[in-house]
Amino acid sequence: MPKISGQTQLLGVIGDPIEHTLSPAMHNAALEYLGLNYVYVPFWVKPQQLGVAIAGLEALNVVGFNVTIPHKETILPYLADVSDLAQQVGAVNTVYRSEKGWVGTNTDVHGFLAPLRQQSCLWSEIAVLVLGYGGAARAVVTACYDLGCRQIYISGRQRERLGAFVASWPQITLHPLLWSERATCLAKISLVVNTTPIGMSPHTGATPLTAEDLAKLPATAIVYDLIYKPRPTLLLQLAMARGLQTFDGLAMLLHQGAAALEYWLGQPAPTAIMATALETALGTEK
Amino acid sequence: MPKISGQTQLLGVIGDPIEHTLSPAMHNAALEYLGLNYVYVPFWVKPQQLGVAIAGLEALNVVGFNVTIPHKETILPYLADVSDLAQQVGAVNTVYRSEKGWVGTNTDVHGFLAPLRQQSCLWSEIAVLVLGYGGAARAVVTACYDLGCRQIYISGRQRERLGAFVASWPQITLHPLLWSERATCLAKISLVVNTTPIGMSPHTGATPLTAEDLAKLPATAIVYDLIYKPRPTLLLQLAMARGLQTFDGLAMLLHQGAAALEYWLGQPAPTAIMATALETALGTEK
Repeated sequence: MPKISGQTQLLGVIGDPIEHTLSPAMHNAALEYLGLNYVYVPFWVKPQQLGVAIAGLEALNVVGFNVTIPHKETILPYLADVSDLAQQVGAVNTVYRSEKGWVGTNTDVHGFLAPLRQQSCLWSEIAVLVLGYGGAARAVVTACYDLGCRQIYISGRQRERLGAFVASWPQITLHPLLWSERATCLAKISLVVNTTPIGMSPHTGATPLTAEDLAKLPATAIVYDLIYKPRPTLLLQLAMARGLQTFDGLAMLLHQGAAALEYWLGQPAPTAIMATALETALGTEK
Repeated sequence: MPKISGQTQLLGVIGDPIEHTLSPAMHNAALEYLGLNYVYVPFWVKPQQLGVAIAGLEALNVVGFNVTIPHKETILPYLADVSDLAQQVGAVNTVYRSEKGWVGTNTDVHGFLAPLRQQSCLWSEIAVLVLGYGGAARAVVTACYDLGCRQIYISGRQRERLGAFVASWPQITLHPLLWSERATCLAKISLVVNTTPIGMSPHTGATPLTAEDLAKLPATAIVYDLIYKPRPTLLLQLAMARGLQTFDGLAMLLHQGAAALEYWLGQPAPTAIMATALETALGTEK
């Protein structure tokens, strides 16, 4: 990181809690590599303080910031403008300045898609299963639809919340599956995405799909787990054992960060440097 | 500086402009030396945004901050509490957290006094001349009074402002001197303090007192110039040529910073490390 001086410009991330974020490691590595006098810092912001914090970031001359749990949805009313994509997802993870004030957008969608775009796949022909119906699932559904997917199954535990999630996408036909039914569609699924916390550290022995479930998938299926602690999760270990292609949340984290940095700096982000920094930070985390 | 992570705590300084501050260099060197996961950053805050910025710093979980020009006086109404010393000076340069909210205090007084306290001098017996009647002069007058000085001369260009300054200290007897009269008292002055910008870079050929003026001072007099760009100023060069003891603003900057850090961290500040960092930053400043 360059020495911090009076000329140093500020970037950051707001969240509650914030202590586990890997974003400072990733962004500061990029800023140092680019030789820019910027620093990226964590801001621990409580939900009831969100509006004051957003106004404060502007008054404190912060150039831009990321938004993480639990503020991604609740921040929308505090912004001067919100991109169409972020409106569609209903969540903002990246905020930058305009003449009007703060503009919110969503680079999680881009981040999720980045590894998938490397695949040669007729997305319009394949079926996707999304596990979970929280904020991350909204970004995943938007991303899959943008990719061209038109057969999207969504599964969650509570019937009412599942119904509400499906109803909230009038422009996209989603096929709801109760949690107990999630394995019934697997034979026709080419992409499974886990957006639930099942399998996340410290519950590393849990998995949203068993080896028996995964055996039903086509041999060409991709399993994408948004979790990156542990790395790999039990779900991805089982998928690898089955010989399936896998992706984890670190790729999404990397590419959402790279896209955010490009919004703030107006220049290409050094993704290889950022990937190394992320892996190092993940490895050394207490 | 330690790597910035999600656990990194924030300190900073607010001002307008802020790009010339040496405080980040000084404080980050101290924090690194102490092995603490803190970072100290500059916040450029416009006067009309001060209230929003102060509330924002609290909502953003900043641990504490310094205040520099032009906010030292105007910040008082935005704080939950202000120390007696800061009330007396009418200026806050250091803000820390309490259960009630932000508490403002003034470590400029301590910073100014630190090099003087090393001197063996009967302060109650000597006379002081303070050049200038701005915010810095208020800290200097408070400091000299706290040191025991009871003969304090104050000189400035505008008769009305000089009168208002003197009248604002009902508890201290100040002797006003018009600028044209400033040299008339020199034969009895043991400490001269320049709080004006006269001689500051880029006007390095200017001096508030000439060699002829300085010749009138007792041989044991001290000349203290709050300016540290250039280092030394023409005033201090002339004083040194006269064989007088001199101090400059870097000592004050160092010791106000050390005292601020002790408020925030509750442990002794590494002043030698901070002094080296300041000198390095001053030498490498663009």
